[in-house]
Amino acid sequence: MIRNMNPRLLMVGLLAAASLLVRGASAQNAPTDNPPGGPLVLASQGSFFVGGRTVHSDANRGVSGGAQTGVSNEGDVTVDQMYVQYMVPSGGEQQTPVVMVHGCCLSAKEYETTPDGRMGWQEYFVRKGYPVYLPDQVSRARSGFDPTVINEVKLGMRPPADLPGILAVSHQRAWELFRLGPQYGTAFSDSQFPLRSVEDLYSQLIPDLNSMSTVTSTLTDLSQLALQLHGAVLVGHSESGFFPERAALMNPGGIKGIISIETGAPTCDTTLSPDQVGALANIPILLIWGDHLSDVPSTADFWSNSFQKCNQFAAQVNAVGGNVQVMNLPGMGIHGNSHMLMQDMNNLQIADLVLSWMDSTFGDQSF
Amino acid sequence: MIRNMNPRLLMVGLLAAASLLVRGASAQNAPTDNPPGGPLVLASQGSFFVGGRTVHSDANRGVSGGAQTGVSNEGDVTVDQMYVQYMVPSGGEQQTPVVMVHGCCLSAKEYETTPDGRMGWQEYFVRKGYPVYLPDQVSRARSGFDPTVINEVKLGMRPPADLPGILAVSHQRAWELFRLGPQYGTAFSDSQFPLRSVEDLYSQLIPDLNSMSTVTSTLTDLSQLALQLHGAVLVGHSESGFFPERAALMNPGGIKGIISIETGAPTCDTTLSPDQVGALANIPILLIWGDHLSDVPSTADFWSNSFQKCNQFAAQVNAVGGNVQVMNLPGMGIHGNSHMLMQDMNNLQIADLVLSWMDSTFGDQSF
Repeated sequence: MIRNMNPRLLMVGLLAAASLLVRGASAQNAPTDNPPGGPLVLASQGSFFVGGRTVHSDANRGVSGGAQTGVSNEGDVTVDQMYVQYMVPSGGEQQTPVVMVHGCCLSAKEYETTPDGRMGWQEYFVRKGYPVYLPDQVSRARSGFDPTVINEVKLGMRPPADLPGILAVSHQRAWELFRLGPQYGTAFSDSQFPLRSVEDLYSQLIPDLNSMSTVTSTLTDLSQLALQLHGAVLVGHSESGFFPERAALMNPGGIKGIISIETGAPTCDTTLSPDQVGALANIPILLIWGDHLSDVPSTADFWSNSFQKCNQFAAQVNAVGGNVQVMNLPGMGIHGNSHMLMQDMNNLQIADLVLSWMDSTFGDQSF
Repeated sequence: MIRNMNPRLLMVGLLAAASLLVRGASAQNAPTDNPPGGPLVLASQGSFFVGGRTVHSDANRGVSGGAQTGVSNEGDVTVDQMYVQYMVPSGGEQQTPVVMVHGCCLSAKEYETTPDGRMGWQEYFVRKGYPVYLPDQVSRARSGFDPTVINEVKLGMRPPADLPGILAVSHQRAWELFRLGPQYGTAFSDSQFPLRSVEDLYSQLIPDLNSMSTVTSTLTDLSQLALQLHGAVLVGHSESGFFPERAALMNPGGIKGIISIETGAPTCDTTLSPDQVGALANIPILLIWGDHLSDVPSTADFWSNSFQKCNQFAAQVNAVGGNVQVMNLPGMGIHGNSHMLMQDMNNLQIADLVLSWMDSTFGDQSF
């Protein structure tokens, strides 16, 4: 049982030249376990959609959007559907599926190949015997969104103020929000993030259109997915960190376990009702935190507050007999992890800790 | 050598009740080959990005888009990067890679599991020994887009007329454009499309933001991908039908072969220069067409014109020693295929024809 409620506050040396630093930091990263090799043998793989509903759009082309002219600008479109891709390892058909949900301004790519080309959590968990399901959040990536409002404003049917604000996290913001270093272009000397490949992380950043979708649709779809899978462990990260808990509060039926990685905005909810806290006490929950939570001036308050709130949440649930574990990596002697710990140089080491938690919690014996 | 320049013009009986029809049409579909079974054994799989460039955004959040307040609304964002996922079969590491590009308002999902849960072309080609690469077009799905202009209009920095028109193909339009039947809700009696699962096709439809990206960026990225792969066959469909040819005209270096499926809007270019036609004459090209091109009143002119233009293009290239084959399925006795022939009930039968063309063209012996 790992419980560590105190963030590590460690000042690190700062280097001035970002490019030099990026190379230097990479060289300083500790070597990690060799990933499992050999062919990847799958019982099945593919993709499907969960949920979705039909709405009528009176502006599904805009003025210049259509390749064809003279076509009706009205019609029905499907929204709130959630795209899910999956891999089931050969021999793992009866194992508990793991559903990994990406964070803000990212897609399921987050869990695939790392920015520097190493094995991501998707393949690693599959190689360890678990079926892995990767959704794109509703209104993101292959799950799409309803662009009607944008076309309506273009066509003068609505005022510009009706447009959604669309969040595109900049390189500068990502560096500091994801805690690659104390300020943009400067890395932590012990950073585990593959900084030489940071451009690939920037390529992963795509616009977050959550303000254009029904807020709860991803949660509903996740609840439904867990039921369809006859039980699953839901993994959330950052923006989606508390999605598994929210999905469980909507329908706990299929949710066997919850892993919340660096729950961000919104952070863990400490205002749940006793009934809600009681419901979550029935589900094993693991909260994971990386390093340097307070070491980036522009995001220190944000992450420290998130960490504090999640620890408070854990205490609330555990006080009524719950099973919430807080895995605070620096408190365990694992240093330098960024917010993107599933992509860090020691990502498989952290995956092993998660797999051990699953083993001890669910009694799976496949690894 | 298959050459058939004449579209089949066949009137089909129309049924009135759409729901009855959908069930009926499905029952009438001819049975297809059993897909290859057993475990799927991969040498490798994963994802990466090709291309991309950095632009400065002065509105990367909009008013209400950010989860955090007090954060700068400016910064650098990466655009024009192309997300690519891949699977390399065990033993197929030396085989010619096949890059399959999706069409309008769709994502790479187009080539994955079919709407009714059957094996798609991605897995089938992998099982036949070929590495398969699935890009999401630039500005689509996991390749993202730059939302700056939308935020700028919301913030009053630009007029609404500057907004892009965003194309979301409606159910009604998709039914007729993809030729599922003569009009929305009515199916062709011999339709090969899995109509009972048409809702899943609608879920695949996501907004086309091509008007927000640099027009040539997907083409540049495809050329670069083919070079990175040291030679590849590029497959385009519909909106992307002529992308392989365009990519080859930018840089033919890595493009060993081209497969253009139902090239749509824009259609095949018959105004190329002699040098351009000559360049394409060096690359084996296969053009594939489904059924009922002229049988949907609202799209008959569009598809007939596209077919005619592509045949004209084929004749131009072949006149200077090229190797362009036109695979007109109804002319070969294969009836009822929709525009989404890679998802039709006989999708693997058509895949076999493509594989045979690759075999005879490139001499591959893996199937």
